[in-house]
Amino acid sequence: MNDRPLILITNDDGITAPGIRNLIEIMNEFGDVFVVAPDSPQSGMGHAITLDSTLHIETLNLDDGPQIEYSCSGTPADCVKLAVNEILNRKPDLCVSGINHGSNSAINVLYSGTMSAAIEAGIEGIPSIGFSLLDHSWNADFEGVKKHIHSIVKNVLENGIPKGIVLNVNFPKGKIKGVKICRQAKSNWIEEFDKRVSPQGKEYYWLTGKFENQDSGDDTDIVALEKGYASIVPVQFDLTAHHYIQKLNTWEFEN
Amino acid sequence: MNDRPLILITNDDGITAPGIRNLIEIMNEFGDVFVVAPDSPQSGMGHAITLDSTLHIETLNLDDGPQIEYSCSGTPADCVKLAVNEILNRKPDLCVSGINHGSNSAINVLYSGTMSAAIEAGIEGIPSIGFSLLDHSWNADFEGVKKHIHSIVKNVLENGIPKGIVLNVNFPKGKIKGVKICRQAKSNWIEEFDKRVSPQGKEYYWLTGKFENQDSGDDTDIVALEKGYASIVPVQFDLTAHHYIQKLNTWEFEN
Repeated sequence: MNDRPLILITNDDGITAPGIRNLIEIMNEFGDVFVVAPDSPQSGMGHAITLDSTLHIETLNLDDGPQIEYSCSGTPADCVKLAVNEILNRKPDLCVSGINHGSNSAINVLYSGTMSAAIEAGIEGIPSIGFSLLDHSWNADFEGVKKHIHSIVKNVLENGIPKGIVLNVNFPKGKIKGVKICRQAKSNWIEEFDKRVSPQGKEYYWLTGKFENQDSGDDTDIVALEKGYASIVPVQFDLTAHHYIQKLNTWEFEN
Repeated sequence: MNDRPLILITNDDGITAPGIRNLIEIMNEFGDVFVVAPDSPQSGMGHAITLDSTLHIETLNLDDGPQIEYSCSGTPADCVKLAVNEILNRKPDLCVSGINHGSNSAINVLYSGTMSAAIEAGIEGIPSIGFSLLDHSWNADFEGVKKHIHSIVKNVLENGIPKGIVLNVNFPKGKIKGVKICRQAKSNWIEEFDKRVSPQGKEYYWLTGKFENQDSGDDTDIVALEKGYASIVPVQFDLTAHHYIQKLNTWEFEN
């Protein structure tokens, strides 16, 4: 009998992105790897799912390891749903998503396809981790993150993660000094829409923006990353602001 | 000087949906209403934003009130970003999203375009509420929810909502007994993919599923709705599982 863990891998940059190819290589050491990842980039998809159109999957053989691979026409969250409920014949022991080309720290976790896939797996009761490197480039250097991913995955397989929590791991670009457990920094984007005119004379916009950290605490993911540490934020998908329920109960409503 | 509040309205069912038309009618009593909503349905879009393509807006005049309206080619979160940063010349005093045709209770909050718009406004520092009715039908009856929306909006304008929190309001179908403050029920979807074959012989899938409440507590949104009450869940977008940070700090990582 095979007692190697069954590991599901996905991402949001698409199945051919160097980030996921590096993650597959690392994870092949830990267990039997199934990849179900988008057939094209899906950055900024948040927790989107495909309700109004059909989903397609294709088997893929890139000849770079023992993993089994499927590309999918859907979003990262779709990939996890399809993998768990249609493709795999048992629940994975672990889901890893990434390595994302670019940051998913602070408020970016909400817009992140990488993290939505990890969260979707968490909702399905699978221990789950999203990995991101603070380098948008397609040719980002993933060598330095490998031993850290190895160490984090080893911890998760040994210790488990309680239901309702997934890990959001971000790596700084360049030398990594170590790992810090953090909270999500309070932050937002100051949008700057780039307004242009098409050759047909029609106005249109590109969404651009500047990231703004509004958090002066020193225990945030942003601070850890700025200091050269990898950040791990435990993320939950119970969004209830429990501390505010008591206050809301003092409001008077129409009956 | 005009001291009426500036109110931004959006949704995910599209600007012509009866849900948003009813919400506009209610909100016109409270202030100066700007509508920036998707030009087509965006259900299940989660917190998606448009990074890889252009955004278009059109002014719209449906002649059914004093509100000013724009339709937008983007997602609900895009609509809020465009409204706040490009269309409006000051920050709205309130953002309301909906009324969604269908539930955004329990785990559905994560997949919801309606709530992602409300959360986006919250991130921008705007008091914000998402409204949903547990009736998917285009011809859903919104009459019964009007006085409750009125009462909830009145409370929010009078009391404010602290930064970092937005309200997720769901209404049961039919007679409403009152309003309950709740927490998000622990729940998930059991996906059932409907596998079909195209006329060209290619396999494809439709995502379907059954909602499963895994929560036996009686203080959840699901229970309130089942008993005929409207549910209000205060929602936060700091996803940090603060209670788990201490435990993670006992793990040993590679340096």
